[in-house]
This record gives sequence, structure tokens and C-alpha cells, in this order.
Amino acid sequence: MSLQRNLGGIANILRRDSMEMTTAAKSGHPTSCLSCAELMASLFFHHMHYDVKNADNPNNDQFILSKGHSAPILYATLFRAGAIKDNLLSLRKLTSRLEGHPNPRSFPWVKVGTGSLGQGLSVGIGMALAAKVQKRSYSTYVLMGDGEIAEGSVYEAAELAGHFRLDNIVAIVDVNRLGQTGQTMVGHRMRKYKKRFDGFGWKTYVINGHNTKAVLKALARAKKQKKPAIILAKTYKGKGISFIENKEGWHGKALDEAQLVKALKEIPDTLMPPFHVHKPAGGKVTTAKKVAVKTSFKKDTATREAYGVALAYIAKKNKHVIALDGEVSNSTKAAAIKKVDINRFVECYIAEQNMVGMAMGLAVQHIPVFCSTFAAFFTRAHDQLRMAALSKANMNFVGSHAGVSIGKDGVSQMGLDDMALFRALPHSIVLYPSDAVSTAKLTGSMLGIKELCYLRTTRANTPIVYKNGESFPIGKYKVVKKDNKATHMLVGAGITLHECLKAYEILKKKGKKVIVVDAYTIKPFPVKDFRQLVKGKKVIVAEDHYEQGGLGEVIKSALSGTGTKVNHLCVRAIPHSGTAEELLHKYEIDKDAIVSLVQ
Amino acid sequence: MSLQRNLGGIANILRRDSMEMTTAAKSGHPTSCLSCAELMASLFFHHMHYDVKNADNPNNDQFILSKGHSAPILYATLFRAGAIKDNLLSLRKLTSRLEGHPNPRSFPWVKVGTGSLGQGLSVGIGMALAAKVQKRSYSTYVLMGDGEIAEGSVYEAAELAGHFRLDNIVAIVDVNRLGQTGQTMVGHRMRKYKKRFDGFGWKTYVINGHNTKAVLKALARAKKQKKPAIILAKTYKGKGISFIENKEGWHGKALDEAQLVKALKEIPDTLMPPFHVHKPAGGKVTTAKKVAVKTSFKKDTATREAYGVALAYIAKKNKHVIALDGEVSNSTKAAAIKKVDINRFVECYIAEQNMVGMAMGLAVQHIPVFCSTFAAFFTRAHDQLRMAALSKANMNFVGSHAGVSIGKDGVSQMGLDDMALFRALPHSIVLYPSDAVSTAKLTGSMLGIKELCYLRTTRANTPIVYKNGESFPIGKYKVVKKDNKATHMLVGAGITLHECLKAYEILKKKGKKVIVVDAYTIKPFPVKDFRQLVKGKKVIVAEDHYEQGGLGEVIKSALSGTGTKVNHLCVRAIPHSGTAEELLHKYEIDKDAIVSLVQ
Repeated sequence: MSLQRNLGGIANILRRDSMEMTTAAKSGHPTSCLSCAELMASLFFHHMHYDVKNADNPNNDQFILSKGHSAPILYATLFRAGAIKDNLLSLRKLTSRLEGHPNPRSFPWVKVGTGSLGQGLSVGIGMALAAKVQKRSYSTYVLMGDGEIAEGSVYEAAELAGHFRLDNIVAIVDVNRLGQTGQTMVGHRMRKYKKRFDGFGWKTYVINGHNTKAVLKALARAKKQKKPAIILAKTYKGKGISFIENKEGWHGKALDEAQLVKALKEIPDTLMPPFHVHKPAGGKVTTAKKVAVKTSFKKDTATREAYGVALAYIAKKNKHVIALDGEVSNSTKAAAIKKVDINRFVECYIAEQNMVGMAMGLAVQHIPVFCSTFAAFFTRAHDQLRMAALSKANMNFVGSHAGVSIGKDGVSQMGLDDMALFRALPHSIVLYPSDAVSTAKLTGSMLGIKELCYLRTTRANTPIVYKNGESFPIGKYKVVKKDNKATHMLVGAGITLHECLKAYEILKKKGKKVIVVDAYTIKPFPVKDFRQLVKGKKVIVAEDHYEQGGLGEVIKSALSGTGTKVNHLCVRAIPHSGTAEELLHKYEIDKDAIVSLVQ
Repeated sequence: MSLQRNLGGIANILRRDSMEMTTAAKSGHPTSCLSCAELMASLFFHHMHYDVKNADNPNNDQFILSKGHSAPILYATLFRAGAIKDNLLSLRKLTSRLEGHPNPRSFPWVKVGTGSLGQGLSVGIGMALAAKVQKRSYSTYVLMGDGEIAEGSVYEAAELAGHFRLDNIVAIVDVNRLGQTGQTMVGHRMRKYKKRFDGFGWKTYVINGHNTKAVLKALARAKKQKKPAIILAKTYKGKGISFIENKEGWHGKALDEAQLVKALKEIPDTLMPPFHVHKPAGGKVTTAKKVAVKTSFKKDTATREAYGVALAYIAKKNKHVIALDGEVSNSTKAAAIKKVDINRFVECYIAEQNMVGMAMGLAVQHIPVFCSTFAAFFTRAHDQLRMAALSKANMNFVGSHAGVSIGKDGVSQMGLDDMALFRALPHSIVLYPSDAVSTAKLTGSMLGIKELCYLRTTRANTPIVYKNGESFPIGKYKVVKKDNKATHMLVGAGITLHECLKAYEILKKKGKKVIVVDAYTIKPFPVKDFRQLVKGKKVIVAEDHYEQGGLGEVIKSALSGTGTKVNHLCVRAIPHSGTAEELLHKYEIDKDAIVSLVQ
């Protein structure tokens, strides 16, 4: 019984810490910490196996605080366990690592940013898969709030983990009944949650989340299951403090000084009880490095096809590379990896949010991951991508079927704002190659970059522009045609480079002097070199993308202040179904539009 | 029995049509049409009440083809019912309304674009709610594929409809077992689906989807339920054609001419059987118009607060206005509408995808809708927003807590790429007012614009800049300060306008001549006027947004080719927690950064 008494004592210390921290910060979510105090104490001071002195021990059990607003109790827990020495009262200050919501920036115990709700379970599944890939025995624990259970991404994750019968992930839901503005849809009707997760193939436990004995028992059982397990813990928001416990109107509110004094009187002020954390053996991780992909392309090849070729090549060179795809792998060509090793391909079905969340989890656990779907459908997971960009890990996303050039399927399937979206992610790298050779080389180069990378591919077959030996440094462009004394510069990327090249031939016959640039790096764009190259020329940029946020605005921004005239050809209407050729022409991003602008 | 025989006959005609159409188009998804032929026949040729001659009759039962790739059978159905006279063999052609996936552009029977899977149910719930608001008795039917049931948005919709006990929506799932690349996670284990939707509080029916008697019976029962109902129809992909039925590898593949001949031999070629469609009474709809919001702001007020004030004002003037919010209405201030009429507020909980989908459904049914959450969390629903932009309907989105100026909560809660995302939607309008007066006026102006509108609001209180009588035309800016012979122009919007104004006062003391512009319309930006105004001045633009896709690129693009030097102050790092003032300073978008650039 002393273990439980000790954990109960620790829970109360964590409660006191959380309240003091948020009062000092004059903001934060103390009530959301109080509800999960016994859950945190049971996990970190007994159940979980981790190296208190080394957040990066690859055999540590993994923990994700999906309900990121409870960050104070996570920091307090790590402090009390001896993992960090930060001043807890520095919470939310500019100079502190203890940010308002967990941020991986400089805090190794947090591997992915949380605070956008409902994402943690997908990340956890990614981490659990990483353990399988690396043959490690760690377990992954995801602490969720009940409010975030309304997010659909939770069910995407639940379905896939159930389908895979993943046995090394345990979810815990802190069912404290209250959201920000009132009660959740389900409230404390615990059986409702149970029925729901039963329906997705999980082992479910309904417990009293304030009883450490019940928590430990459920954790022990959950860990032994041969399928994913979820502990539905009935708790009370603000637990332990009479004037806030289970009361509405207290979400995200720090106690004032007087309230804090009153509250602290209600929580026993004990010495830190003894505890023992099981330490796993140490281990090494290898980080992936750039792969120089050898190619032998000769005839017209779609860049998506080249991506598949490169992926298979890379997978042969690096035994850890994994590909994820959202049930379109025969279109994105990610399916090519299946021929190398069927186990290196993870079918994520039509659930892009979970796919991207899993990619995050895999990437931060050092699994080189390529993740593909139609460019249009990455929009479904943009919030996950936004959070993924906070982790400085190599995550590679490949969006196929970019632009109107996909043809007849119509606008819902066309990626027309994907460059805008991926560019606006902090530190992201955005690549848009035009031929098979450059696509394959760039795919290899993405590996090992500790940022989020995006590669945009095209559906249609396109000519080979480059020699198979050519190299494509990220952050550069290629001058593909260069007339002496050129008056015009044509800038294209992907499908429009080929339109620029066709226009070049037409213009050549008309005696026009032209430079053609392949802007295969959309971000970071080599501004300085480009400005040098442009000097005195009129620029025409053509892109298979909406007007905003794509190559056109990149070029205009790069040339801002130079006085250079930039003509921007892009998709300015909601495109129709039709053939690729018809659409490139109708939306005026083809050779004809380019030629007529030069003339 | 003759009804069933007739419907079976019609189903076969629809099968023949779908195959002929896709073969003529040389692309499309015939097998996905064949599986739902009996479902479509039963719905459109007997069960549904609609005015065959008027797609816009507001009392028509509504139908959403969530599995948009089955568009051919929808077109064939409408043709055979006499609703359209288009040449079915024009499918997917540039000159045809019969696009690859349903597109509302010029086809009144399709109110929202589909083809990005898993969105239809949310739209349907919006339409069902619209019926409740307008006291209409139509029912809404949503036909989904089983592959798209992996999308989390489906469960967001399922949970909310179950919670509301919505009794005027019927979902039908065409469980044909096969996705694009293989079997779905569930396959034909129908009880799995049943258990799942039972768990979300729906009435469930498992039927043979190729038996019209069973389909009609389930539809009749579902319609009578006092809660949402879902018909889980077991079907076969490619049903009726021996060489493709229930076979892998046939997704999205049109038959070639020879295969078509062979296939058509297997489907009876009958005359169109007689049918009767119940026609509802006619009705009128009123479309919302711009509301001139009267304000009386005096002291510092957050623009989110002003949004709440305006929303309440508008709700009093227009009895149909509805507000949706994602469980943060006390933060976005949408809660203000509750005081006008609690029934005009729809709590959507933490499920942004479903919220936006519902907004689409409400808007296309002529309900004026305002939909709010944190700017950061609209990223969760970007795919829905992308599809919403295809419907020329008034949908108003309000994103609060923009930028680093929210302070201590940290980056996960900060909208830092929202302008980039909303700008890149076709025909969207993006507004970013700086004070309470302009916010309130612009909120009123958004109403009735037949496009997707986005209003960005700020967390912190900010000074009142304008007189309460001022007007703010969309597509303009304001010159807030104007020195004669100004050498510099400061451009701000939202929180940074106030930094520009502070900088102005400092610079004035130093004898600098400056113009300050409030760029409250981010899109469409008044390029021509602005270029005129700029002439000869150096421009400094400051925005609380990442570098890409926001105000800075708007201004640089607007001034492209003029030679005007533009200094762009924006958030160039992943921001930290801290106070608003600290963060504006650290990321160099405050008065100090502006002043030092001018000097």
C-alpha cells in the first residue's frame, strides 16, 4: 500500500507545483493539470521505464502529452523525477524552456509539439511503429483529454492501430468532463467511450483516474495486451481544490495569489516520497544520410514515377526507410517500395491526418520516412504538418497530381495551393522538379535534412531534361537554356518548365533571345544568385498553381525593389475537367501564353 | 413487386450509362458506380421527394454524393429522371458541365463539390440543420463510400449528429469492400461498421445494397427515426459485370471499347421503366444582405471582442444568422450571439473539419453563417475550406488569436500561416482589421458576399483608430497618417498597424515624414491605387505572420516592377512563449524594428 500512498503524495506535489507555476505565470491551465495528477504520478514514478538522466535513450518508454495545455504538470513531473532542473516558476517566460504548450525546440523530453488537440495518438502510433521497425521493446503512452476526443484524427488513429493490432501503445484519456466552455458531448458517461473504442478494436479499461491502484493495475494490464489498449480514466477537473473541482468556468485560468493561498491549504504539503524509475538499457541510434540516387532514365517519365524509382533505390541503400501512403500508392508510385520489401510500406488508408501524425512519430524516433498522397489531400493534414514543422526531424512529404495538368478528374483532385501551404511552414523545404532525373536526385537529397521537406510531383509523363549524372543541390536553380544577350527570362518548375522549353523553341525561330530557368527549389529560393542572373531581362514565370503563395510570389518577392517586370502566368480560375493540354491552354500557363507574352 | 422490378431495371440502365460514359471519356470510375446502382435508383426514382424540374426548390430532399468519384452515375440518374438534358457522353470534357467529380460551378443539382473524401456527412448535417432553422421538412441523404469511412471527419460528423439526435439526415454507405489499391480495413465485416456507428448514437441498418426492396425498406425506416440513421449497404464493386465484379485492380479504370461491348452484353438492355418522383411544394428563399453595423466603441477593445459585438448586432437584424464555434466561443467571442438567441449558436466542439463542413451545408442552403475558432485551428479544416471555396455561397470564417501577439500560450496556438492559407483559396476574401470599429463594420459587410470570407482577429485589446461612423469598403485600404512630402510608407494590418502608429509618433519627433497605411483588405488587394500612393516612397511592411503568403508578399507583388524598395518585417523564426510585447519585439515586428528601418 505504501507505493500507492507515495504516488498519491507525489500527485499532490504535482498539483501544488502546477498551481504555483500557473499563478506565477499569471496564465495557464491548472485545472487541466489537477485532473491528471494521479495519472502522471503513476506513469512517471512507477510504471514507465525511462532513463531519467537521458531523454534521448532510444529504449525509453515514450510519452506524449496530447492534451498539451497541461504542460505545467509535465514539467513538474520531469522536475520531481530529476529529469530536468529548470526553475518551474519560469513557466511561460521568454527565457524559459518551459513554454505554454510543449515545444520540442530545446526540450528533449518533448519530441513533438502538442497543443493542437487530437494529434497525439497518431504520433504515438508512429512511435510505436518505430519500436517495431527498430525491434525495441519500449512502450508508447499517450495522455489525451476528453475534449480532444471529438477530433476525427483520434478515430483515424484508433482505426489503424486496431487494424494493425499494435500491442505497444497505451492511450490514457483524462475524462474530466469539462471542456473550455462547458461539458463535453459525452460528459462522464464512461460506457459511451468504452463502446466507441471497443468498436475500433481496442482493449478498453474504465477506471477511477484518481485511484493510483486502479491506474497502476490498468497500466500493467494494458501493457500485456496483444492489441492497442486505452484507459478511460474518470477524473475531475480541478481535483482536490473545493472551489474549482468539477466546476465550469475554470478552464485555462490561473489562480490569483489569494486563491492560490486558499487552494494550497487544501492539498497536503508533504516531502517528496521515495520512488523508483526502471531504467532501460542504453542504445544507439543512427540518423539517415543523403543518398546519391543513380538513375538511367531515357524516355519520357512522370516525375511521380521517378519518385517511386528513387524511393525503391533509397530503400535498398537504407534498411530503415519506411514509406507511408494514403491508399493511392499506385498513383503516387510509393508502391515501388513494396517490391523492395513489403514490410517497409505502411498502408495508411484514406486518413491523411493520421498518416502525417504517424510520420512525425516515426521521424522523431529516427526512422527515415517518406509519406505520400495527392498534393491536394495534404491539405487535409495541414494542422498536423504545422505541428510537425516544430520538430527538427527529417520528414519527407511527397504530393503527386499537382495542378491542372492532372486533367479530367477535376479540381477536387488538383493540388493548386500546396506550394503556398508548404512554403508557409517554418523552415520547410519545398522542391518541385520538372523531370525524372532531378526528381530522383532530389528525393535522395531530402533524406537526412533535419527539417520538413516537400516534393511536388506531376501526373503526366514529361521529357527527360537532364543527364543522369547531373546533380541538383537544394537551394539552387538550373539555367536550362541560355541565349547570349537574352532579353527575356522564362521561369518554370515542374510541368511548366516543359512549356517554357517549348516556348523557347518557338521564340528561337522568331529570333528572340531567351533564358530558361528551372526553379526546382521553391524554398529556400536562391534570391541573390537569381537577382544577378535576371539583370535587365523581363521575367515571365509560369506555374501550375493558384496565384497566391507559389512560384510567382517567390519570384516577385525575390525581385522586389529591382524594377524588373515580372509577368506571372498561373491558374486564376477554378479549373474545369479536361485534358492536360486543354487545361494548360485554357488557364494560360502553356507555351502559347508564354510566347504571346514575350512578343 | 413491380416497383422493385422497375427500380432494378433502372439500376441496370444507370449501370450501362455509367460504363458508356466512362469509356467515352476514357477515364473515370465505372466500378464505383456499379456498386451503388440500386441505391441511386431507389433514392431518386422512388424514395426522395424533389422537384425534377427545379434543383433550387428549397423543399427538395437534399442528396450529397460524398463518394464524388461516382459522379457518372449521379449524372446518369439526373438525366434518366428528367432533371438534366446534358449529353451524358460529354462526361469529363472541357465543354461539359459533367465534370470528373461533382462541381457546383454551373450545375445546380450539385450544391457542394465532392471528390475529397469523407466530407459529405458534415455537409449533410449542415443541410439538415438548415432545414431545422428554416422549418422545412426535407430530408438530407448522404451517399458515402466505405473507403472514405477511414477519414476522421466522418466520426466528427457522426458524433455531433448523434449528440444532436438529428432526425432528418440519412447516411448510406456503399460498402463495396474495395478501395483504390486493395481491400478496406473492414472489408465486408458489416457488423464492425454497425457496432461503430451504434457507438456514436446512430440508428444503423445493415442491408444487401443490391436488393431494392431492402434498400427501400431501410430508407423508409430510417426516415422515421427520431435520430440520425445510417444504412450500411453491402455491395460489390463492379456489380453485374462478371469480369470486374468484386475484383481488385479495377478502381478508377474505364473499360476499353472491347471490354464495354462485352460488359454491356451482361446487363439487360431494357426500356426505361415507369417511375414516379414525389414533388414537394415550392418555396422561396431569402438571401442575406450586408448589414451596416452601428458601433459605439470608445476605449481599447480587442478586435475579437468587436467581432462578438457585431455578430450579436447582425443576429438581431437578420433572424437567420447562425454562429458555429469550435469550443472556444468565449475566446473568439462568438458566444455573444448566445445572448441574442441561444438557439442561433451551434456548439461544434473540438472538431473543426466537421464545423467547416457544416458551414458549407448551411451556407448553400441560404443560412447566413459565421464560423469561428482560433486562426491556428482552421488549418485543421483546410481541405474542407478548399472544397467550400468551390461553392459560390456566402461562408464567413473568423480566426482569432492571430500571430505572436497572443503571447504566452506559445506557437501551437498562434495563427501564423492563416493568411497564406486563406489567400490561396480561389475567389476568397481575406480581411484583417486593426481596430474594433473596422472589425465590426467589416463583419457586417461579409454577409451576403457570395464567396468564402475570412476575418482575422487579434487577442489583445488595441486602441480605437477610427470614428464609429467610418465605413470600410472591402477591397480598399485606409491612409491613417499622411505627412506631406513623406519619404516612407509604413504598412500594417491588425496588431502591427498599432506598431506602425507608435513608430509614426517616434519618427515624427525625429522629423521624418511618413505615411501609415492600414491594409485591412489582404485580398483582393487594391493594387492600382496602392501603386499610385506609394510613388517614390520607401515601403516598410510589418505583419504578425510568417514570411510566406501574407501581407508582405501581397505588397511585394503589388509593387513588382516598380523598383520600390520594400522592407518586410514578419515572423522569421518559430516563436517562443512570452508576453505579447516581448514577442513583437523579439521577432522584430514592433515599433522599434520599424523605426530602426526608417532611420
